[in-house]
Amino acid sequence: MADSSALDTLIQALRRLPGVGVKSASRMAFHLLQHDRDGAQVLSRALLDATTHVHHCSLCHTFTEAEICRTCLDPQRDHSKLCVVETPADQSAVERTASYRGLYFVLMGRLSPLDGIGPREIGLQKLFDRVADSEVREVILATNFTAEGEATAHVIGDALRARGLQVTRLARGVPAGSELEYVDLGTIAHAMVDRR
Amino acid sequence: MADSSALDTLIQALRRLPGVGVKSASRMAFHLLQHDRDGAQVLSRALLDATTHVHHCSLCHTFTEAEICRTCLDPQRDHSKLCVVETPADQSAVERTASYRGLYFVLMGRLSPLDGIGPREIGLQKLFDRVADSEVREVILATNFTAEGEATAHVIGDALRARGLQVTRLARGVPAGSELEYVDLGTIAHAMVDRR
Repeated sequence: MADSSALDTLIQALRRLPGVGVKSASRMAFHLLQHDRDGAQVLSRALLDATTHVHHCSLCHTFTEAEICRTCLDPQRDHSKLCVVETPADQSAVERTASYRGLYFVLMGRLSPLDGIGPREIGLQKLFDRVADSEVREVILATNFTAEGEATAHVIGDALRARGLQVTRLARGVPAGSELEYVDLGTIAHAMVDRR
Repeated sequence: MADSSALDTLIQALRRLPGVGVKSASRMAFHLLQHDRDGAQVLSRALLDATTHVHHCSLCHTFTEAEICRTCLDPQRDHSKLCVVETPADQSAVERTASYRGLYFVLMGRLSPLDGIGPREIGLQKLFDRVADSEVREVILATNFTAEGEATAHVIGDALRARGLQVTRLARGVPAGSELEYVDLGTIAHAMVDRR
């Protein structure tokens, strides 16, 4: 398009980023080459470093550069509790609440049979290995409250209960600060059933 | 955030892409590391290649890997006509119409005094050097029909006319295939004035 195969290759490569089409990729490439070549080199190095050094924690499966991540190694943490989340971003959200001091297991996905993502793809066996013969007594399912997240929680919950573990799920209910008038009916109905 | 400085560095680096905030950058980083490490390495190489090899054509200022781009070197082109566009994407749009066989000059921007982009930043002197003592007889201003694009065309047009060149502007009017009822009034008014 602009008389440069390196530029075309860059545009194609940028399209591999999620949510980036050919127009965005062109805009990104032009921006980097015209206004931020330093940024392009920083990004190039960062990509290489991350793919070289970042892998999964052998205990909780989150991204880390060590064999076992800092959270899993922390002796201050309650090793009898394990919170199952879909992604590192979800783990980070739970961490920021400062309401939980146990350990985590990061699925790095959710069950989604229509997309061909089954128990094997999200490493459920790894979770089962993790809880076997460990100090873990309670598993808290904190997958998203979407259809796929709920299905994932259901499948994991059944399997873990069959292994004799206590399994809980984040409470469903009315979000803090909301007015009932504007809360969707399904949420209110759940909050009514789970009232305490 | 996820127990890895390489990952944090990658997220920060991705934020240098235009239109990418911290949420998108996290999503991109997780996607690459979880599902497309090959893509991350391809992108890393493409960024390095492009910043190393791509520079500006010494005649038309577009991106190229050669000293002078293919379009400028093409003897089949009409060297008496020079079409001034804002970006390589605009150049590509004009090329795709197959209605123009002259040469180009790519500003790589537009005048935008509020953003501190003046004549020097978009290399107007380079354009003036380009048309001096060359075969160019007619300069066609094809900057965008936005306020900034119009102002850019106005400034360039005045300067080139003072140098004795014929200066034309892409026609303003009703877009092909549109119904008058839905065309904005400014466009209809311009089309009325420029009727032929």
